Amino acid sequence: MESKKISNNMLARMPIYLNYIKALPESTKNISATKIASALGLGEVSVRKDLAKVSDGGRCKLGYPCEELINDIESFLGVKSTINAVVAGKGEMLQLLLSYGGFESSGLHIVGGFDMNCAKKRNVEDKTIYPINQLEKVCEEHQVQIGIVMVPAENAQKVCDQLVSTGVEGIWNFTPVHLNVPDHVVLQNESFAASITKLRMQMKDRSEAS
Amino acid sequence: MESKKISNNMLARMPIYLNYIKALPESTKNISATKIASALGLGEVSVRKDLAKVSDGGRCKLGYPCEELINDIESFLGVKSTINAVVAGKGEMLQLLLSYGGFESSGLHIVGGFDMNCAKKRNVEDKTIYPINQLEKVCEEHQVQIGIVMVPAENAQKVCDQLVSTGVEGIWNFTPVHLNVPDHVVLQNESFAASITKLRMQMKDRSEAS
Repeated sequence: MESKKISNNMLARMPIYLNYIKALPESTKNISATKIASALGLGEVSVRKDLAKVSDGGRCKLGYPCEELINDIESFLGVKSTINAVVAGKGEMLQLLLSYGGFESSGLHIVGGFDMNCAKKRNVEDKTIYPINQLEKVCEEHQVQIGIVMVPAENAQKVCDQLVSTGVEGIWNFTPVHLNVPDHVVLQNESFAASITKLRMQMKDRSEAS
Repeated sequence: MESKKISNNMLARMPIYLNYIKALPESTKNISATKIASALGLGEVSVRKDLAKVSDGGRCKLGYPCEELINDIESFLGVKSTINAVVAGKGEMLQLLLSYGGFESSGLHIVGGFDMNCAKKRNVEDKTIYPINQLEKVCEEHQVQIGIVMVPAENAQKVCDQLVSTGVEGIWNFTPVHLNVPDHVVLQNESFAASITKLRMQMKDRSEAS
């Protein structure tokens, strides 16, 4: 499926569906778009469209077999075809991020971290933090495809360039800096600042309307 | 400005402009959209449109006075009119969030955290983590307007309801669960799973195209 046909909102709903269907009692064998929509407070038309994009298991009146739908959403999200990633960051933030298990459940296997500030290899739970000068070696050894950039703004482009030179195909940027990447590399920006602004603007709209 | 007129992409570019302009040498008094676009590898038309939405300081041939533009972007992002927020979470992830300074620079003052798993008040750097049963008291005391939800999925709705009952106007949801909120409360979902899927799909498109 081409990414252009998938909206951000639809993408954001997929993990929510998955979570909801997985939490249903085992006795629930089938689930309809109508039921999902009403349980999650979403529009029935969107749910129907979303599910049709990832699964062709829907049956008139019966809905989708739960097991099949879970499988289809997981395939769509790529949960089962894990790819390798590394995180470049600094200090405690990096350490805490490596102990966060949430990326793994989305099909991203975090091979290890790189610390801007530390010249000594160390372990955090089951992950290793390497000095930044070992980036090339580790990325090549583990065939890393995604580099997560969380270093301070002033180092961001340099670290991004290093990651690109090891052959990563995707950069996930958590810094507030615009990164330049070559055409064959995909750049995804994560901006908490933008999310906060959006939330605050909507709160303002809402309070002015009432 | 109404939030409907602002695209997500434009919102995400604003902190990037801000960061770039702030890092310019002090001797740079004016900056043009053309220069920003070329430095950041962005389209000139988008930069021009974005800046026109937040500032009317642009002068033909001269561009924008840097100081004024910084000011206008900061006002737009709400950096200077701080509002209070709390984070409800668990264990190390909560700690991670509280030691992350990035929210403060976006005008969100994190008053404290609430730990699902801990009945004892403790400090992380300059922040306090409270037991979850003090949520109501702390939120009311600090007139908290935004609740950040990072608790395990099974507790998410309950914690969201508690936050809403203290009077917060916005819920920022980091869990993969759909939360129900009353009409006067704004819900903003943050999904790392969706970001990862988007990045991977684009990587796949790119590699198939080449």
